[in-house]
Amino acid sequence: MDRAVDQLLEARWVIPVEPHGVVLEHHAVALAGDSIAEVLPIAAARAKYTNALRVDLSEHALIPGLVNAHTHNPMTLMRGLADDLPLMTWLQQHIWPAEARVMGPEYVRDGIELAIAEMLRGGTTCCNENYFFPDVQAATYLRHGFRAVVGLPFIEFPSGWAKSRDEYFDKNLAVFDEFKGERLVSMTLAPHAPYTVADESFSRIRMLSDQLDLPVHIHVHETAQEVEDSKKQHGQRPLGRLHALGLVNDHLIAVHMTQLLDSEIESCAGAGASVVHCPESNLKLASGFCPAQKLRVAGVNLAIGTDGCASNNDLDMFSEMRTAALLAKGVASDASAFDAAFALQAGTLNGARALNLGERIGSIIAGKQADLTAVRLDALETQPIYHVISQLVYATGRQQVSDVWIAGARKVENGTLLGFDSAELRGKAQTWRERIANFG
Amino acid sequence: MDRAVDQLLEARWVIPVEPHGVVLEHHAVALAGDSIAEVLPIAAARAKYTNALRVDLSEHALIPGLVNAHTHNPMTLMRGLADDLPLMTWLQQHIWPAEARVMGPEYVRDGIELAIAEMLRGGTTCCNENYFFPDVQAATYLRHGFRAVVGLPFIEFPSGWAKSRDEYFDKNLAVFDEFKGERLVSMTLAPHAPYTVADESFSRIRMLSDQLDLPVHIHVHETAQEVEDSKKQHGQRPLGRLHALGLVNDHLIAVHMTQLLDSEIESCAGAGASVVHCPESNLKLASGFCPAQKLRVAGVNLAIGTDGCASNNDLDMFSEMRTAALLAKGVASDASAFDAAFALQAGTLNGARALNLGERIGSIIAGKQADLTAVRLDALETQPIYHVISQLVYATGRQQVSDVWIAGARKVENGTLLGFDSAELRGKAQTWRERIANFG
Repeated sequence: MDRAVDQLLEARWVIPVEPHGVVLEHHAVALAGDSIAEVLPIAAARAKYTNALRVDLSEHALIPGLVNAHTHNPMTLMRGLADDLPLMTWLQQHIWPAEARVMGPEYVRDGIELAIAEMLRGGTTCCNENYFFPDVQAATYLRHGFRAVVGLPFIEFPSGWAKSRDEYFDKNLAVFDEFKGERLVSMTLAPHAPYTVADESFSRIRMLSDQLDLPVHIHVHETAQEVEDSKKQHGQRPLGRLHALGLVNDHLIAVHMTQLLDSEIESCAGAGASVVHCPESNLKLASGFCPAQKLRVAGVNLAIGTDGCASNNDLDMFSEMRTAALLAKGVASDASAFDAAFALQAGTLNGARALNLGERIGSIIAGKQADLTAVRLDALETQPIYHVISQLVYATGRQQVSDVWIAGARKVENGTLLGFDSAELRGKAQTWRERIANFG
Repeated sequence: MDRAVDQLLEARWVIPVEPHGVVLEHHAVALAGDSIAEVLPIAAARAKYTNALRVDLSEHALIPGLVNAHTHNPMTLMRGLADDLPLMTWLQQHIWPAEARVMGPEYVRDGIELAIAEMLRGGTTCCNENYFFPDVQAATYLRHGFRAVVGLPFIEFPSGWAKSRDEYFDKNLAVFDEFKGERLVSMTLAPHAPYTVADESFSRIRMLSDQLDLPVHIHVHETAQEVEDSKKQHGQRPLGRLHALGLVNDHLIAVHMTQLLDSEIESCAGAGASVVHCPESNLKLASGFCPAQKLRVAGVNLAIGTDGCASNNDLDMFSEMRTAALLAKGVASDASAFDAAFALQAGTLNGARALNLGERIGSIIAGKQADLTAVRLDALETQPIYHVISQLVYATGRQQVSDVWIAGARKVENGTLLGFDSAELRGKAQTWRERIANFG
């Protein structure tokens, strides 16, 4: 640690996530610039770091910033556009036509800004983005000092972003070059899904993933229909096809995975692939039930994502952790499955690991980036407190988030979102609503 | 309407629930004392009722107060005591021993007070209570002006409330007499469950239900084990046994119902019985999946409950409506199942109907009691707004509740809970935690 400790976050409880399940009482997290320098008892911290700014978190639990491992943030502007519809009606008659009308840099920028505000207010400090216009995405996240992993999109259809396979590759690689070396923004290769990407593209993506050390972020086995269609078209299940193409490896971020054979779970575990579970989206679109507890037991790195606001309809990682834990118990017929400490790990460290950021964020240990979320636990809704981690997962709402730091910079202070004009965000959202609703 | 209109609640949106699915824009709800006098456009209301107090709800949706159709509110003091445990370990090694130590009038009173505060802050105006010491329950709800339906408990075990079957009946009937005619508190007969109540008690309960026109509030088919045990012990499924005892009728409030044959669903529909769905508790305890959409389609009156805080871990009816809607879609494999407007009806009017209060509360129509909840929709988390009812069910958090009325009396005003000292509630919760944690 070269830089001096400049902030002491003095918390009633610190939950570092590493080691697993630990709750430290009356501990301080000492920050030096953008990094965590030390975690130690408050009294010792005050004696050691006499010049640091002290931040009083005496009613708070301090946790790693939440990592939303799958989202489509521009679609925040389509929150609730078309609910309670079958998947294909929803997509083909509402979402895609609306997107076709508004897709462009301004839409992506404004949607992401609204999303950043929502994520910060809810304690999320990093997201795994998946949409078009990755250049606009990256620039928007950087402008707001928000940590993001931006997907470079590949799909065998023309879009506002690119018109042909070659153009997707060319433009995406140019974006990768443009933002290489950024501290807060990194990239994934993001082929949309097995059913929308051809083998030839997958082969190029696999090669790029190896050469550039980039994760591959993809929707896989979202529905039973997808699996059946693949069997007809390719003679194998989507995961089998990806395996044959060399993509089932430790770069794979497989999202949804509601349809899994035990052999596929073993295969993912053996390959070191990550799975992103999006329980609320899977329920809302009636996609199926991800066998989350089985994946966990098999040793697969399991992260959590909200999916986009058109199918959730929020970016609330507290709610998503809770739903993941509850649903996993129901699906596994085991009330001890997917316990609270694991849910918190899935919403933080496992997300970081999936995004190839496991060495930098996701837990509160010395040397990692200071991405931190403070949660007030003195609300009546979280009284009394028997077990802090349980309370965070099963009883805490995101409105109890009081303070957020990304790379040591304060983004939310005592409940106030910094750096955004809420009235302006609302105004822009309403303007987009007028444009979208007329075609939705 | 004898009394003069004294309040005009002027809302951006009024969602009356009756008629189903309707959203009235820029409407006022005119209150006369404890009742709803009229629902009409704001301009017309101002012209007609010139002397009434105007309440500005210009960013708000005004909905009927939420009805929590199954809860054990004293257990709010055991929120998070023992999570992530198998049902029987949870009950036998944690909950029951803890209850045995603390059960008494003070515990019931203090737990309910904390629960009322939480319910009001979250927009709930009526609950269906199920616990011991119904006299203390009724007195506590009345003291705080909260509408409650108090269960008169029957179980074939001695408890702090009663030592023998006869004592349960005697004490419960005395409580019924004591509170008869109260405006805010009514009663149900509340045999715990088929597996803890004998046929002889059920026969007496059935007779009392007929004589006194009281609903029968009971846990039924919560788990597959319960059904299997009943088949072994009684040669029939619990619902079959209740049917034989004459209890499957329009007084029945059957809670949980995760294990249902199609014939049982038809039987409940034909009998006019109500089912209370507690999706989060069922998931958390891995009890099974209630076929909510099938029940709805069959015409069963389906209400929603949170269950107690030891198995949820909150009294959040917004979250519960959302989970009910999401889970029903997943279970039915149909994204159009259990739509938002139905979820809101289940959380209001259907709860009222189950509790035999369908003529008095549960919708915003002239002549009903003024139990109302105003929800701010200008939060960033609910922007933009395409469909108000969707937004309420799928994106709104209970923290957006700003104002609550019960029988015309303001209980929450612009986000501030009236009539409670939050510091005192926290202090009491912590005191109980000390007592309970030492034995939990």
